[in-house]
Amino acid sequence: MDVYVSGIGMTPFGNHPDKSLKKLLIDACTEAIHDANQPKIDAVVVGNFMGGSIYNQEILGAIAANDLGLGPVPTLKVEGACASGGIALRQAVIGILSGEYETVLVAGVEKMKHVSTSEVTSAINAAMDNESNEKHAGLTFPGFFGVLANRYFHETGATKEHLAMVALKNREHAMQNPLAQFTKPTSLDEILNAKMITDPLGLFDCSPTSDGAAAVIISKKPSDIRIAASTQASGVTQMQLTDDLLSLEAVKKSGELAYEKAGLSPEDIDVVEIHDCFSMTEIISSEELGFFKKGEGYLAVEQGRTKSSGDVPINTSGGLLSRGHPIGATGIAQIYQIVSQLQGNAANQVDDAKVGLAQNLGGTGSYSVVHILERIG
Amino acid sequence: MDVYVSGIGMTPFGNHPDKSLKKLLIDACTEAIHDANQPKIDAVVVGNFMGGSIYNQEILGAIAANDLGLGPVPTLKVEGACASGGIALRQAVIGILSGEYETVLVAGVEKMKHVSTSEVTSAINAAMDNESNEKHAGLTFPGFFGVLANRYFHETGATKEHLAMVALKNREHAMQNPLAQFTKPTSLDEILNAKMITDPLGLFDCSPTSDGAAAVIISKKPSDIRIAASTQASGVTQMQLTDDLLSLEAVKKSGELAYEKAGLSPEDIDVVEIHDCFSMTEIISSEELGFFKKGEGYLAVEQGRTKSSGDVPINTSGGLLSRGHPIGATGIAQIYQIVSQLQGNAANQVDDAKVGLAQNLGGTGSYSVVHILERIG
Repeated sequence: MDVYVSGIGMTPFGNHPDKSLKKLLIDACTEAIHDANQPKIDAVVVGNFMGGSIYNQEILGAIAANDLGLGPVPTLKVEGACASGGIALRQAVIGILSGEYETVLVAGVEKMKHVSTSEVTSAINAAMDNESNEKHAGLTFPGFFGVLANRYFHETGATKEHLAMVALKNREHAMQNPLAQFTKPTSLDEILNAKMITDPLGLFDCSPTSDGAAAVIISKKPSDIRIAASTQASGVTQMQLTDDLLSLEAVKKSGELAYEKAGLSPEDIDVVEIHDCFSMTEIISSEELGFFKKGEGYLAVEQGRTKSSGDVPINTSGGLLSRGHPIGATGIAQIYQIVSQLQGNAANQVDDAKVGLAQNLGGTGSYSVVHILERIG
Repeated sequence: MDVYVSGIGMTPFGNHPDKSLKKLLIDACTEAIHDANQPKIDAVVVGNFMGGSIYNQEILGAIAANDLGLGPVPTLKVEGACASGGIALRQAVIGILSGEYETVLVAGVEKMKHVSTSEVTSAINAAMDNESNEKHAGLTFPGFFGVLANRYFHETGATKEHLAMVALKNREHAMQNPLAQFTKPTSLDEILNAKMITDPLGLFDCSPTSDGAAAVIISKKPSDIRIAASTQASGVTQMQLTDDLLSLEAVKKSGELAYEKAGLSPEDIDVVEIHDCFSMTEIISSEELGFFKKGEGYLAVEQGRTKSSGDVPINTSGGLLSRGHPIGATGIAQIYQIVSQLQGNAANQVDDAKVGLAQNLGGTGSYSVVHILERIG
């Protein structure tokens, strides 16, 4: 595809008591615009999930266009649960492919830290189907992925230690990332002994609530970073609708479409960002994306293959688990990390990274978006 | 553009105590799919504004794909305040122009009647900028458009009677529309003497809260109805940012772009749906879209030119004022009416209507979307 990355921007992820949703959004956009050398922008797409429900703030598209002084360009917000950021980027790519736009600003933003836990949990549960008995029976997202983890243990022989190894790896990556939410050293013991959230997932196995924003400018004008594929697929909106708990069909499908579109295979990918909303999710999705055989992703973790020094470096940013997970921003933050890797200036830089893949998940596997980026300079 | 309408569907607008947000959405989609003769659908775009904030229900894109059995196709929700429906359609058009999709299902839905007035008012105010002093000083949307009305009176010599004539016309149109929310006859006197909402706008000058959904299927495959233009522009997010209260810049710009794209002028349009969130808005936007000179729209109303029997028939559906305004659905309901007109089977059918225009507004003029459709069969 003739779509290229012109610039990136990102706020630190974590706790921003003094910055509003809008301020975070504008900060990330301003940095991306500066990084892209002040291009003429033809449209703005914003990914956000809970601005309306917890901050009574919608119209983020128009706010960005107005506050950045971009003129009367078309703008919108898109939502697809935790995949809102990735979907926003895909909509921008489609806008360029359509010929309607030459250059598009895409941003993702969320502010989650300054409302009560029950408010934020309720807002997150809007990513489940209200009419499902599961939601009313008390299923939550940690519950859903906890069930998957227990099933995975049962099928494969993996244990809680493997989940802890994912959490530890991502924390160790985050320690090198100045934009990450959690940079304090930890240990396998601390992770294994942490507060249980939902059996078998402990505190470190679950991504946090976060404030933050990220932005990317894409264009038809060539740059060193080309978007080789932008694909999306849907999956089930209820746990009971899946044929196989260990299969995230949307992840598999969006990955297959992306490899086909890019003319690449998993072996060609040098660096990966996977949507590790829970440690378990990273392992299952690493299998669905074809990096490891079904049921063997945990062995790759055990062997250190998914560390930044391994042959399949996953979540060199620290991932959702330790870089943080401001919902609407996550999909764009993944792109920020992949672009940084391809430019050779990333946290946990992978030697000579030329091709990167980012995968962003929403709901109970309801949405998955995959982008493959390649350095062509 | 090689984009055509294959099918339309719409629930009655009004009060649906027994139907959930999801049920309304699925009902409209099912009707459109049936009308289009069960095509293979490649993507789903849903317009919705307050499902998250008042019903704790997001992921409407994935819910539609799942419940309609469409398979793993890409889906998303889009938001742009009251223009969410029009923006959803434009995103679908862009998806087809990009070559990513052949056929796309677009739906708009809102359910507003079964929460308290304060809850729904608060949710609507998410379409203002939280950081504006206007919002905190108590400005509401009726307040904003009331200020515009007083200014319009001051500049032009128009009076409350002209607003009442718009409300009466749209009610008379709605009386012929079996899908409209308000079909009870009324009179100029009743309208003029109704409860004041915000000076000078009375109850009948303000669009109601509504439940409802509408859907349209568009495709690259030719049909009798072609989309000749799909355009969007942004405007101010705060009243104080405008240079001229009587200018809705986004409406003007989106209209100009649409005429240019379609190679048409206002004189070529046979039937029009304008976003009459308030009676005043219809008059100003009819000027911004070039149907009448600036400051003369009220005279056209007085002369009956905007009735279905006039030379510029506006809101033959009954408009937002009387057909109803379930926010996310409105932009698609406008398309439903225009398509019905071009097919010759509309409520208040305009003789031999060949070209129709729909204009959908969001926020304080923050978003405007225009679609021009033409019958080519």
